[in-house]
Amino acid sequence: MAKYNVVYAQSGGVTSVINASAYGLIKAARSSALVDSLYAGLDGINGVIDENLIDLGQESAEAIEALRYTPGGAFGSCRRKLQDLEKNKAEFERILKVLDAHNVRYFFYNGGNDSMDTVAKLARFAKNAGSPLQVIGIPKTVDNDLPITDNSPGFGSVAKYNAVSAMEASLDLASMSKDSTKVFVLEAMGRHAGWIAAATGLASRDPAVGPQVILLPEVPFEPERFLKAVSASVAKLGYCAVTVSEGLQDKEGKFVAESGTKDAFGHAQLGGAGQYIQEMVKRELKMKHHGAILDYCQRSARHLASATDVEQAVACGQKAMELAGKGLSGVMVTIRRESDSPYRWGLDHTDASNIANQEKTFSDVSPGQVANRCLGRTEEQI
Amino acid sequence: MAKYNVVYAQSGGVTSVINASAYGLIKAARSSALVDSLYAGLDGINGVIDENLIDLGQESAEAIEALRYTPGGAFGSCRRKLQDLEKNKAEFERILKVLDAHNVRYFFYNGGNDSMDTVAKLARFAKNAGSPLQVIGIPKTVDNDLPITDNSPGFGSVAKYNAVSAMEASLDLASMSKDSTKVFVLEAMGRHAGWIAAATGLASRDPAVGPQVILLPEVPFEPERFLKAVSASVAKLGYCAVTVSEGLQDKEGKFVAESGTKDAFGHAQLGGAGQYIQEMVKRELKMKHHGAILDYCQRSARHLASATDVEQAVACGQKAMELAGKGLSGVMVTIRRESDSPYRWGLDHTDASNIANQEKTFSDVSPGQVANRCLGRTEEQI
Repeated sequence: MAKYNVVYAQSGGVTSVINASAYGLIKAARSSALVDSLYAGLDGINGVIDENLIDLGQESAEAIEALRYTPGGAFGSCRRKLQDLEKNKAEFERILKVLDAHNVRYFFYNGGNDSMDTVAKLARFAKNAGSPLQVIGIPKTVDNDLPITDNSPGFGSVAKYNAVSAMEASLDLASMSKDSTKVFVLEAMGRHAGWIAAATGLASRDPAVGPQVILLPEVPFEPERFLKAVSASVAKLGYCAVTVSEGLQDKEGKFVAESGTKDAFGHAQLGGAGQYIQEMVKRELKMKHHGAILDYCQRSARHLASATDVEQAVACGQKAMELAGKGLSGVMVTIRRESDSPYRWGLDHTDASNIANQEKTFSDVSPGQVANRCLGRTEEQI
Repeated sequence: MAKYNVVYAQSGGVTSVINASAYGLIKAARSSALVDSLYAGLDGINGVIDENLIDLGQESAEAIEALRYTPGGAFGSCRRKLQDLEKNKAEFERILKVLDAHNVRYFFYNGGNDSMDTVAKLARFAKNAGSPLQVIGIPKTVDNDLPITDNSPGFGSVAKYNAVSAMEASLDLASMSKDSTKVFVLEAMGRHAGWIAAATGLASRDPAVGPQVILLPEVPFEPERFLKAVSASVAKLGYCAVTVSEGLQDKEGKFVAESGTKDAFGHAQLGGAGQYIQEMVKRELKMKHHGAILDYCQRSARHLASATDVEQAVACGQKAMELAGKGLSGVMVTIRRESDSPYRWGLDHTDASNIANQEKTFSDVSPGQVANRCLGRTEEQI
């Protein structure tokens, strides 16, 4: 049987379990009868375009095993998005040429919405060019905003970390509130989807344990309503723990903390929602406040990863190799929810074009919960 | 044998293991032939002054056991510092009166430098007043700035959490640096002592794993030298992970992030030390930056507590009861280092006045390491 080579690359913001998907794919590829050599692209698609390919045949079994436990992107990631085919055909031709020169039949791209755009475009280009190249997407994103899949590898772990951190910090806040800080503001990641912010309520089983207020990007920010909720919590409990999503927006859909710069994808560069909320609390309520911005620490917190998330990340990597073996291209592995309680899941796949540039927000899936979550439990239970 | 009552109270910023000391003391007091009832002061010394005492006899064994694992201050803490005896004798008289009314012989105060000032003053006042009250200090502080004791319960856990977080975030930074963030700034607690900031280097065994630069409050900040070190790291590795202590100071001993001040370049100062450093990197080096401020999350991170720290916290609580049984007053439990490797320790005690209002800085203990640590490994190894 003819054997072909494989390239695996990581893309977009990394997670604490993206390397676990690499592990799953590498293990499956190493034991596949279809695969000869296995390469990783250095810094995502850049590694293909610049012909910087890491030969994984040189890596020991121990090094591959360690990928299961290592946060960050082991081979480097990137924010490079392929332009439209019409605008930069040369880039697509270059990628195909490099992969062809290395006898690569299977290209696996591990990323989120934008990366699945690359998977869909490249698969289509290869097919039209008569190339046998197969392009398969492996899902990844802390934001959990990929449609169709039940959840995205990376989210379970960031949710667990943020939930535990919010609960722990609120216990700290509660114990000092008598004559010190009254309001604690935790800024969570999430540009357009409030999954991470919403998850900060998961570790609390008691209204006295925060967060008392959760501000989601899906719910237009109303300062008066927010300040009333904080005041009510402080009046009742003596304190108020707030979670704010970095992507909090006003009624006009403008980020409350827009800094004016844009990232490589043309997205507004965020950061600052937590400070914005703290400043408002200080100015309008004259209350002592503190705040944490977990930033990269949240998406790299492998020390508190979710076991299910790690399992799913590994399984998605393995499944991608299986899909390749079936001759598929332009698809992404998806997670299928089979049962809520106990949580049971299986794997499927969908066309990458169904994922590309789409966002699944918290309100899409849990509309009934958004009203509660946007102001936590303040209105009903405090 | 006559039995007496006990009051335990927590003071100052809480830690992820202060409740483990409460657990140690409560367990020892419950099994002591000297002790009748056991109370906790609500919100520290406030609970004594306002006669808000929680009867711990009502608490189940499970609730007491749970203290070992619960961050924050279970009975509330406070920032109230007793004034000098000459200035507010009435306060001391009030405390003595409340404790006497409740037949309290042993008062345990769990806190840091300021709290040991309270222990020393109250013990002296009681003695001079002919009261049999004994006042015993149990050490606690994330800053690790208490003199005499080898370390302070709370520090080991915050050190472990910050070390792991810095290591994890630097792996994230490294993987994205090719076309995204070049500089990541982690702000660590520590107003005057750099123990926590220095500890962020402990989980890295490789110069490529950050932090590459550590800025301590003990080392006057030199912007030019700092920017040179960051540039060197970015030139060599492609990125630079920086830890900055919240208490970073300039050559005049002024906090760089003091509100209302201007930075070394004459720009108005906003936010904390982490933001100050990020702004400087952006303005002077024009590099993309990110930053985390862990704030309360670091001192409440019980999920990543150090096992040794928990053991020491429990043991300090138990030892305090033992010292009470020996008739001591005005003392604090201390940890004695018996061996470096393996780390072995025992317990002692010292006069609380030796601890009160003193600060043990990182440079007091590790002068040879400060020069290295203040700029991490940049100078020697990059």
